[in-house]
Parts: sequence; structure tokens; C-alpha cells
Amino acid sequence: MIRTHDAGSLRATDAGTTVTLAGWVARRRDHGGVIFVDLRDGSGVVQVVFREEDAHALRNEFCVKVVGEVTRRPAGNENPELPTGEVEVTVVELEVLSEAAPLPLPVDDQIEAGDDIRLRYRYLDLRRSGPANALRLRSRASQLARGVLHERDFLEIETPTLTRSTPEGARDFLVPVRLQPGSWYALPQSPQLFKQLLMVGGMERYYQIARCYRDEDFRADRQPEFTQLDIEMSFVTEDDVIDLGEAIVSTLWKDLAGHEITRPIPRITWHDAMARYGSDKPDLRYGVELTELTEYLRGTEFRVFAGAIDAGGYVGAVVMPGGAAQSRKELDGWQDWAKARGARGLAYVVLDAETGEARGPVAKNLSAEHLGGLADAVGAKPGDAVFFAASATTREAQELLGAARVEIAKRSGLIDESAWAFCWVVDAPMFERTDEGGWTAVHHPFTSPNAEWVDRFEEAPDRALAYAYDIVCNGNEIGGGSIRIHRGDVQKRVFDLLGITPEEAQDKFGFLLEAFKYGAPPHGGIAFGWDRVCMLLAGADSIREVIAFPKTRGGFDPLTSAPTPITAQQRTEAGIDAKPKPQPAAHTGTAGPAAPVADPV
Amino acid sequence: MIRTHDAGSLRATDAGTTVTLAGWVARRRDHGGVIFVDLRDGSGVVQVVFREEDAHALRNEFCVKVVGEVTRRPAGNENPELPTGEVEVTVVELEVLSEAAPLPLPVDDQIEAGDDIRLRYRYLDLRRSGPANALRLRSRASQLARGVLHERDFLEIETPTLTRSTPEGARDFLVPVRLQPGSWYALPQSPQLFKQLLMVGGMERYYQIARCYRDEDFRADRQPEFTQLDIEMSFVTEDDVIDLGEAIVSTLWKDLAGHEITRPIPRITWHDAMARYGSDKPDLRYGVELTELTEYLRGTEFRVFAGAIDAGGYVGAVVMPGGAAQSRKELDGWQDWAKARGARGLAYVVLDAETGEARGPVAKNLSAEHLGGLADAVGAKPGDAVFFAASATTREAQELLGAARVEIAKRSGLIDESAWAFCWVVDAPMFERTDEGGWTAVHHPFTSPNAEWVDRFEEAPDRALAYAYDIVCNGNEIGGGSIRIHRGDVQKRVFDLLGITPEEAQDKFGFLLEAFKYGAPPHGGIAFGWDRVCMLLAGADSIREVIAFPKTRGGFDPLTSAPTPITAQQRTEAGIDAKPKPQPAAHTGTAGPAAPVADPV
Repeated sequence: MIRTHDAGSLRATDAGTTVTLAGWVARRRDHGGVIFVDLRDGSGVVQVVFREEDAHALRNEFCVKVVGEVTRRPAGNENPELPTGEVEVTVVELEVLSEAAPLPLPVDDQIEAGDDIRLRYRYLDLRRSGPANALRLRSRASQLARGVLHERDFLEIETPTLTRSTPEGARDFLVPVRLQPGSWYALPQSPQLFKQLLMVGGMERYYQIARCYRDEDFRADRQPEFTQLDIEMSFVTEDDVIDLGEAIVSTLWKDLAGHEITRPIPRITWHDAMARYGSDKPDLRYGVELTELTEYLRGTEFRVFAGAIDAGGYVGAVVMPGGAAQSRKELDGWQDWAKARGARGLAYVVLDAETGEARGPVAKNLSAEHLGGLADAVGAKPGDAVFFAASATTREAQELLGAARVEIAKRSGLIDESAWAFCWVVDAPMFERTDEGGWTAVHHPFTSPNAEWVDRFEEAPDRALAYAYDIVCNGNEIGGGSIRIHRGDVQKRVFDLLGITPEEAQDKFGFLLEAFKYGAPPHGGIAFGWDRVCMLLAGADSIREVIAFPKTRGGFDPLTSAPTPITAQQRTEAGIDAKPKPQPAAHTGTAGPAAPVADPV
Repeated sequence: MIRTHDAGSLRATDAGTTVTLAGWVARRRDHGGVIFVDLRDGSGVVQVVFREEDAHALRNEFCVKVVGEVTRRPAGNENPELPTGEVEVTVVELEVLSEAAPLPLPVDDQIEAGDDIRLRYRYLDLRRSGPANALRLRSRASQLARGVLHERDFLEIETPTLTRSTPEGARDFLVPVRLQPGSWYALPQSPQLFKQLLMVGGMERYYQIARCYRDEDFRADRQPEFTQLDIEMSFVTEDDVIDLGEAIVSTLWKDLAGHEITRPIPRITWHDAMARYGSDKPDLRYGVELTELTEYLRGTEFRVFAGAIDAGGYVGAVVMPGGAAQSRKELDGWQDWAKARGARGLAYVVLDAETGEARGPVAKNLSAEHLGGLADAVGAKPGDAVFFAASATTREAQELLGAARVEIAKRSGLIDESAWAFCWVVDAPMFERTDEGGWTAVHHPFTSPNAEWVDRFEEAPDRALAYAYDIVCNGNEIGGGSIRIHRGDVQKRVFDLLGITPEEAQDKFGFLLEAFKYGAPPHGGIAFGWDRVCMLLAGADSIREVIAFPKTRGGFDPLTSAPTPITAQQRTEAGIDAKPKPQPAAHTGTAGPAAPVADPV
């Protein structure tokens, strides 16, 4: 090593030692004849002292090597903020390892810079303590998770990333294959089918910190490539996977957030989560639960509510504590907020802070009886506001109230930003109606119905429940998984219900169905959205903060300018415009997509 | 868990315990009224005993759950070969978890099957102990390497795999970008430039078990995607990287091969390796060194040798112990062997086992004096054969002799298959001549000249040496790396010598050059070919054996039938045929290829 000591490791006990340090000039201060420099390396910072004539050329972010003696700082000059604050290094030898031009992005924790400049000069951004610590945390998180898994005899197995394309589901990124012109690989949306094949192969306990790819329209905080901690186990029940998931998150949060998670983490059914919080990823750091009013308001003459009730739908409410104190403008703002979400508006009443009397647009439409009992029915007090939603589609109304609940918590400052609230959302529905009146799988078509429904999910597909579970932290879904179907007969019945013909099934999922013929074990798993987990642990507000070289929206990399046009020669060589040859007949009928489905993170 | 115990864990001390096991029917034997089944799970095998009427339907590879009591086997029926051989489980309850159709690939360690059938039914192949153990070993190898690295404060950092294409070097796999039609990502050949940027970013110690991609014509044992253990460190010398590399391989070989590597691992210069072994990855499990005869044979009238000597080239020899006993057909076979390698032939003499007299085609062309001293000059004994190579190009002749050396060792049984011989090949040349008379980088253009040459490599580019090092095991290059250039002025001089204009350099490597302006630290690293390392540790003869789902030659996956044609809709959506828009001007000139260069593994 070019250095003998880490800058950040020096202490008063090192006084008298001659050390060689190597790092960056973080700050210089000239004091008539001597120059003080904060020398920074990966371990921290120490003050080094030069004679003026030796160091006049040093500028910020020069990379230097210095030899000097550690001395105690003169009394009164100690810096108690700094671990090395009791000492300084008096330099006898300086070597500039490389110079730095004027910086396009100051290396300073105090300065906020735009994303584009930060990403374009990411190598300067990473010299700042925040970004550097985010990557350190991520490394440690992966190490901790691996520790939990290896302790439990999991095998780390790498699955292919040049796989088979499927025209279904989210879009695949495609890769032309020069050696088979006209044929294309796809980058996997997840290792889902490969990990299931590993279970059929008897590997029993698999994990991988896997790169995955989804060619989506970039919403906020999506990246074209992302990472998941991907896990699959054989001979397990839902409880086993949940137990493992808890072991992982509790290890992570204890070590990296100093937070002891109380186990077992509470479980809430999907239907309860929707009923109480209007969300399948409820933020439990605060209350503000929804109240269903469908029965309470049955018989109302208010057209909006009556219509929903008569259609077999749902009317419900959520209370904003103190919401009666909002100005007319603020209350109107809620209408705009609701419209921005695609709703027609957000009905409300406010309860007079003195009298408790209900006022507002909805109040005049409700009977005296309905108004009189409302506060009790929804648990509101004088001075609160009550927001309503009604729809023939229960889920639609619940989700509007759920979103209002989150917004209420934000506007009313109900969120304890230092709190961590975890839950499992379990017993998700197997199926939901398509717009065409058929059924589609809520998770994916390989998710197993639970024991109660496995033999009769056809009787009431809308009520059938799956062994599917998501783990939620502060309203963020950080992981999800399921017990999979491992029996060909059950799989066939699910395909039948979904309207997938045997021929289609064979064509799309042939290789997995083939594998299931040969003694497939019961199995299930989970995948954690690793970027999101690390983001939460780092206290960051974007997954970009925990990715070394993230892309901007649209998938652009300001550092390398990727993606780029390609040359005509590359195009020709890669066989991009070649006509595909017919496929080898031997494999027809056992082929299927490599990753049409994924644990939903 | 569906099971209470692992099958392979049961011992005599468990007798009397009621256990629930889950696994596969590995073998059944019917014995009038009772059926013995070997039940296999991830932990091993145990014998379970059924009454005939309960188990008559069981066939091989049924996945079953059984409840039964552990009993000691009747005296004399123990199987000492099996860890569970003292006990059996008398089944009281059987549940078939899933049935197995007749197997296309028997799950039997004794049966050799073709690669195509093994890969197509990889999930059955993986139930065999050999393939399963290969993946277990790989998982353990990664865990061990990570342990060494984390102990030394390395950070695991994930770098992008959707990067910038470069038209240089090995071909990139390309990915069309739907959101920027006409633009393409490239899959990285290695994280080389990103890891260097991380060093500029002050991360100091990086590693990643990284997926890499090279669109090569598939030679034996190449895969379109492969894995490397990728490492980079700041403020280090070559010795530091070598020391770390040794810590990793010695940990791996001790734990996984039971072999204690003697450290330091011997270092041999690139020039010595070529001179003594005719290879830059010499197999040191045996001797059979080359002897240079250029001076010895100076003045010979034998045209072939004289021509090489006069051209300033090389004549050398390698001895085949006992080679004189070869038949005429065997000796002719060497000519075919040499021609298959592209040589014109392989000159030889044989030394009579009795008299030591030199005979054979070359003997009559050499003077009595040259013949008389030959045995001493090359270290041959009566009964040996001496093979010659001569060329105006030293390296060409040395490589032919090096290949002959390997072939001699194979044919003569000189290779101790149980031996492990490691070495570092260091001091590689910086440059070699191109066919056009210019210079090209032997490693890559970011490799640093060593201290002796850094200020004057232009004086004798053919003799300038680099801080570049490869680690070799039994003749396989398992890793390689270098100290990188971190100074803009040195980098510029290297580009100048390579005939890269400043404009080209800016266009190709702009973002790295830009990064070097801001206090880049001295840095270097290494990359291990992880598939090859695991292959050697597993004692396998192909990297396919240590890859979960490998592809065949040509990049075909017999399991999923990837790659495939894509639909017209996919083609349109992906923007494959779109014309690229002009690039944002802001980034012109700082852009460069994402991964034109790589640690050479």
C-alpha cells in the first residue's frame, strides 16, 4: 500500500509516529506561513500541516501522498467533532499523485446539486459522504442478507440473463443473436421460472441477488435494470418463507437502522388491508383508518351514495383530525387532488369545532338521522373533517380513501419519520375480473390457491385466496412472494379458468409444465426489491441514491451518454435485420417464456 | 417445513424417533411384502420401508412425504457406505406430493448422458449428485471469496449492465431502447471502466461477482454470458493486488480442494515463461522446459534454422523423455499435430536408446559438431526425442514448442492429475506490433507501464514492461489484472504511441479521461474468471458443469429454446428499426465506450 495508515484512524495515542497518508485535499486554510489541509480518504479526515512554500500549489481534490509525524494539536485547537480531532500530521514530504482541475461539482456535503450534474460527474458525487455512505450501506446490506441465508443452508445460484422472450406481460429488453441471425434473447424480468426449475431440480434452497430488467415507461423512481434479492425454498409452507423474510429484515434493520423489529411482524389479510387502509401496502406508522358506511347509509336519498349501494358497491369514509379548520381553498384543493387521481371529486363534511354540527356540500344531502350518527359511525370528533368515497367497485372507492388517508397523514403531520412500521399482507385474492369479463391472476398464474380454495376455486374465483404475501415497510412494498403450484392438475385448472388453452399453455409455459411432470416438490419463495430496501435503510428518497451509476428517466446515463446509435457494421454483424430460420423441431412444444412472471416487487 | 428431519441426517441415535421426511424416490427394491425405498433429499439418502400394499404405485422420482419411525436395521443389514446406513424408517403414512412420468434422463450418477439431453432436462440432471455438488461448490466458493474481501474492507458494488456500446474490441451484445428509438445499450464485456470510475470516486476497495457478456464465435467452453470476480483497489502496488489474489485462491483451494497453497505463489516474468515454457500460462505440474538453441546453432547450414537465426529470430527445442521409442507412425503424428496448429511441421531427432546417436530427418542436416553436443545442450538422454522449432518471430517458435511441451506431458503421462501448480506471470510487455507496423496494447490501453518504463516507453516500445499480472493454475489462466494509468499525461503518451489521436481518444474514452482530470488515485485490480475457477475446484472438464443453466455452442439453450424469433409487434415497439435522433449536444465530447477493455480472463 502506498499509505501506512488510514487518515481517519489517527488518534492521540499515535502521537510521535511517522505516517504515510494518501488521499484527497478536502479543504485548505492558509495561516501565515503554514497551510492546514483536511486530508480525506475512505476512512475519514485528518488535519495535515504544511509549510506554505511546500503546499502553495495544492487545490481542492488534488490526490496526494504525504509523509509526516502525528502530533497532538496545541491545547485549545482540538476539534471534538472529528474522531481525529486531537491530532494533526506535520508534513515533511509531499507527493502530488494527481492534480485536479476546477471542479464542475464541488465535493461538499453542504451543496445540493441537480441530478443531471451529479450523475454526469458521479465520481465526484461519490466523494461526498452521503452518496459514499449509501453505497457502503448497500454493500453491508447484501453481506448481512447473505449471512442470514448461508446460516440457513441456502445456495447462491446464478441464473441466466440471456433468456427467452415472451410477448406477454411487461415488455422484455431484447438482444439480437449474431450467431443465430433473426433470433433474439430477452433480458429476464426476474429469475422466477429458473428458480422454480431449480426447485424441481432438488436444489431446495436458492437465493441470488439478481439483476432484473423491465422495459417500462419510466415512472418516478424506476430504473430499466434493478436488483432483487431472490429466494426460493422447497417443502415449505407460507409460514416458513415469512419466517425467513422476517429474519432477513430484522437483521438488516437492527444492524443498519438500529431498529429492533418486534417479531412476529403483524399480518393483515389483503381484504382487511383494503378495508382498513384502502391499500395493499398500508403505512402503519399512523392510524386514520377507513370506515365502511355501506350499511349505515343504506336507504339514503343522496344519489351518489345510493347509486353505489344499489349497485352492490361500497360507501366509506376517512376522518381528517382537525380537518374542519381547513380554509375553503384547502378544502377545494382536495377536489383537485382527487381529480388528479382520476376520481370525480372527494365528498366531505366538516364537523363544527364547537357544536359538532356537520356542514359542507354533502351535509345537505344526508338525512338528519344519518348526519346525527355520522360522527359516532366514523369515529370523528368536533373539529374533524370526514371524507367520503362511493363506488359500485369496492376496490376503487377503498383505494381513493386509502390515498386520502396517506395525504391526510402528510398534511396533518401525523407521520413519525423516525418510526418503522412493518406488516405482512397475506391471503391475497387469486383472480380478478378482466375488462373483457374473464379472469386474470392477481399475482401470477403459478401462484397456489390456499388449502381452503385449492379444490374449488372455480366455484367463486372472485373470492378464492392465494398463498401470496407481501412485506410492507412504512407503506412501501419491499418484498413479495407466494407458494407456487407444483401439481400439474391444479396448474391445468388455473389455466382453464384464466382461459388459457392447453395449446397456448404448452406454447407459453411448456418447459415448466414439462418439468412439473417429474416429481416437482412443493415450493415457494419471495423476492425483495433490493434497491428499495436499501433506499429505506439509507433514509434516501430515491432508489437512485443507492445505485452506483443510476440512469435518469428515459433510461439515459449522463455519465457515458448511453444509449447511443450503433454503426451500420454493428447492425449488420448483429443480424438485427436477418430473417429468422425455422426453429429446431425437436424442441417445439416444450418451449415457453423464460420469465413472463415474477414475484411482484 | 413439511419435513421434521433431513433424510441424510438420521443416525442410530435417532432410533425410536418418529420423523416426517420429504424427498424423492431414488430407488425401490421389492422384497415379498415389503418395499425398500431410498428416499433422497438435499441432505442425502435414507432407506425407508413400506408395506407392499402402501407403496406399490411408487416409481422413481416421485416426490413424497412419509411419516415413520426410525429403527436400527437388523444386524447384518447395515450399509457402512451410507452415513444413514445403520438405520431405516418404517413408514406409517405416505403422501405422494407429486408423481413422476417415465424419465427422459435417468437420475443416476452412473449414467453418462449427452450434453443436449442433460441441458434440456437440466432439472433432472441437477438431481444427480455430481451436477448438484458442482453448484453447491460454486455457492461456497463465492461465499469464501466474499469473506476474504469483506475481512479486508472491500465494498460490493453493483455496476450497470445496460451500458454504452463501443465499436472496438470484442463484439458487444446490443439492446434496443424503446424509449429512445434508434439508440442502443450494450451489455458490458466487464465492469472495467466503471470500477476505475469508482476508484476516482474514492470508493478505494471494490468488488463484484459480475455478469459479463462477449459476443464471440463460440470456441469450446465459452458462454455468451460469464461471471468474473472483479476487484479494484486504490493506493496499491502490484504486490498488494497479488497478495489479495493469493489470499483468495489459497482460501478457496484450502476449503474446497483440501490443498494448502504455498505462499508466496512463485512469480515468473512473462519473458521467462515464454522462454522456459513457451506459454504465458505455463502448466508447472511438470518440467519439460524449452531450451533456446539460437546461439548454439549459429552457423548451421540447415536452411530452416539458419533462416530463423539470420532473421534475428529464434531456434529452440523441447525434449520428450523416452520419445525415441515412438513408432514411425507416432512420430509422423507429430507432424500432423503441428500442421493442425498452423505450423509447417515439427523438426525432430531421436537419440538412440543404446548409443545416444541422433537419428531422424533433422539429424542429417546438422553438422557432426552440432549433433554431438545436442544432447548436452538440451538436456536429453539416450532414448529421448528432441523437437525443434525455428522462426524469425521468437514468440511463434516458442509457442509451438510450448504446445509441444503440453502434448508431450499428456502423451507421456507426465501430468500428476492430483497436483496443483500455481504461478503469477508478471512483467508482461506493454505493446506488440500490429500487422500494419504500428503498436497495440498487449493488455489494454489503460494498463500502466512499470516504474522503469513509465518515463521512456517510447524509446523501445517492444521492450517496455507493464504492471500486468496473470495468475495461472495448472496451465489455466484463472485471473489477470494490472495497475492502471491514473495520470492524464501518461495516458496521453500511451495513446500517442498507439496512434490514437486526441480527438479519437476523446470520442472513445472521453468520460474516463474527463474523470482523470479530477485527482484520480493510483489504482489497480484483478478479475478472476469465476466459471473457470469453479470448474477447476470442482474437478470438472467444462465450465458448463459449474453453471446452473448453461448454453450449448452457438448460444442455444436446449431447455427454454432461447433465443427465438420475435413478433412484429415487439420489433416495432422496441424501436429496432427507428432512425436515431441526434444526441444531446451537452454530452458530446465527454462520451466514450462503456467497456472496450477488460481484465483479460
